[in-house]
Order: sequence, then C-alpha cells, then structure tokens
Amino acid sequence: MTLRIWFVIFILAVVVLPGNQRANSQRTQSFDGFQLVDKDGNIRKPADYRDRFELLGTYTVIDPKGNQMHVTYASPGTAAYYRKTGKFPDGAVLVKEIYGTDHAQLTTGDAHWASGINVWFVKIKDEKSRHPDNKLWGDGWGWALFKADAPDKQVATDYKKDCLGCHIPAKSTDWTYVQGFPVLKSK
Amino acid sequence: MTLRIWFVIFILAVVVLPGNQRANSQRTQSFDGFQLVDKDGNIRKPADYRDRFELLGTYTVIDPKGNQMHVTYASPGTAAYYRKTGKFPDGAVLVKEIYGTDHAQLTTGDAHWASGINVWFVKIKDEKSRHPDNKLWGDGWGWALFKADAPDKQVATDYKKDCLGCHIPAKSTDWTYVQGFPVLKSK
Repeated sequence: MTLRIWFVIFILAVVVLPGNQRANSQRTQSFDGFQLVDKDGNIRKPADYRDRFELLGTYTVIDPKGNQMHVTYASPGTAAYYRKTGKFPDGAVLVKEIYGTDHAQLTTGDAHWASGINVWFVKIKDEKSRHPDNKLWGDGWGWALFKADAPDKQVATDYKKDCLGCHIPAKSTDWTYVQGFPVLKSK
Repeated sequence: MTLRIWFVIFILAVVVLPGNQRANSQRTQSFDGFQLVDKDGNIRKPADYRDRFELLGTYTVIDPKGNQMHVTYASPGTAAYYRKTGKFPDGAVLVKEIYGTDHAQLTTGDAHWASGINVWFVKIKDEKSRHPDNKLWGDGWGWALFKADAPDKQVATDYKKDCLGCHIPAKSTDWTYVQGFPVLKSK
C-alpha cells in the first residue's frame, strides 16, 4: 500500500507537475504585461525585450528633416495569438523603438539602417479598462513613452495628446499599423 | 529502506530532472543549427523562425529599380553570446528575408514597410569546417538561398558565386553587416 502511494506520487511528480509548470510559465511569459504596471497604472519599459520579444515589423520613414526607423516588438506569443484570432491578447506588450538612421551605398543599393535610438513607445493591451482614472489608459491600451536621455522614465502625461494623434489612421486595426507586420499573417 | 529509495527517486523527479530538461531544451534551442543540415551539408530553412528567433536588424534599400527591405533574424541567444564574445556562436542560424516594399504618406512622413517576400538567405555558423567538399560551406559559414516560388527548396549551388559577392564589404565582421544590428551592442 505504501509503495502504491509512492508510485502515484512518483507519477505525479514526473509527468503531471512539470507539465503544469511549463504551461503556467509559458502563459505567464507570453502576456504578462500587467507585471509592468503598478496599482495606479504607471507603466515600466520591459527589460531585455530585444532578446526576449518577437519582431512585428519595421517602418523606414524617409523625411528631408531626418530619416527614421521604427521597429516594433511584441511579447512572446502575441503574433501566434493574432494569427488565430485577429486580435492582440489582453496583457500583450508592444514596444516601438524610434531610431535615427545611417545610410551608405552598399552592394545592394542605398541602404538605410538604425543608428542611435531616440524614443520608445510602449503599449499594453487592456481589454478590461483597468485604469479608468489614469490618462495613460484608454481605447483598449495602456500607453507609455520613454526618451533616450532617461530611458527608464515614463514621460507621457495624456495618451490622447502624446500618442493617439499619430495612430488615428490605424484606428480600425486597434490603433496599430498592422500592414507592415508580416508575422501577423504568416509564421 | 524501500521508503528511502522512493524518497530519493521522488526528489530526483521533482527537483533534478525537470531542471535538466529545461537546461537542455534551452541549450538545444539556442544553437541547434546543425539540426537543419543533413550529412552531406544540405541546409533546410528553419520553421517558425519569425515566432522563435530574435531580430538582429533591418536594412531598407532605396533603389529606383524597386525598394527592398532586408530583415535579419538569429536563433535565440545569438545576440547575448555576441555581446559577450564579439563572435557568432558555432551553430547559430541567421535568416535574412528580402522583401519588396509598400509606402505611403503616414503621420510621421513617407513610410516604407515590408510587403511581399522574395528571397530568404540562411547562414549557419560553422567553426569546424564540417563540409569541406560542399560548395555551400566555407569562410566559417554554411550558406543557403530559398526563393518565394518554392520556399522550402534550397537553390544556391556555390556560395562563392551566389552569396559571397554581396558580403565582401563585411568580411572583417565575419561576412555580416553588423552595423545595422543594435542588439549586438545592447540588449
């Protein structure tokens, strides 16, 4: 009898528990955006997103006043979820880097690439209107802005003034310029 | 005595084995490029790299004959390894996508983004000259080319003719245009 009990514990330990741990850890890693948010709705920039997140896509803006490159990353699993559902999952984190560019005549032509970073925009998908009294939350997202001179200091004060203006043409696609994000269509 | 043996097995099962599994799985995921190579040196394109790999960087080529966007991904952990050592690890996989582009006047200016994909280049870092008789291996890498009309068919026949020409200006940085890859400098 004792042996049987131990056998059950053994099976539980080898097969069931590690599987659970993996499932939980995967779920937490994927859409854990609210770990970046304090109780008042203040948003931190995720650490190591370049190593951990997946690319959504790049926009290169050619502008006589200075070219830019916009590179957008999403927390792991976001693209797979979007391909299945057509939506960003609650808790997904998007990070958009705004770079200046360098360019040179390389073997394939006049090539432009990201040089110094100027600004980060961070959005956290919020389906439940968690912070109705915070001016950085609304229209289904938490919105945040960080600048290169103080990369960890969130400096937006009102997403409608600091963020939304540039996103109005993308309102129908959840305020996100999805046309430049091939991974949302195909893995 | 029997109880003690079961207890040891139990501890092994709960604490030690799952930890090992995680460590192995992490190591394999990172630099498992040779899983894509058969015994003759033929190279397959990695599946799901857009979801699994990390971005190295994007080049946008402005060209009167047709703009391009080049997006390069690396297998997980490659950037962290490079930041520590200044080298690509043996077995690292790089995937470069070559896209056509669309563009439009968006809120930030004349924005260019990736549209249809034309070509994939794949490189696998090989420090041990594993395939000296195969013309797709040399100069520290295995080299491969896939085209959109048959995305899984490797079509390069000689890396010196099909690949190396465009990479000569990047010879001193292991044949890779690292200047456009910010993650190699900072996470």
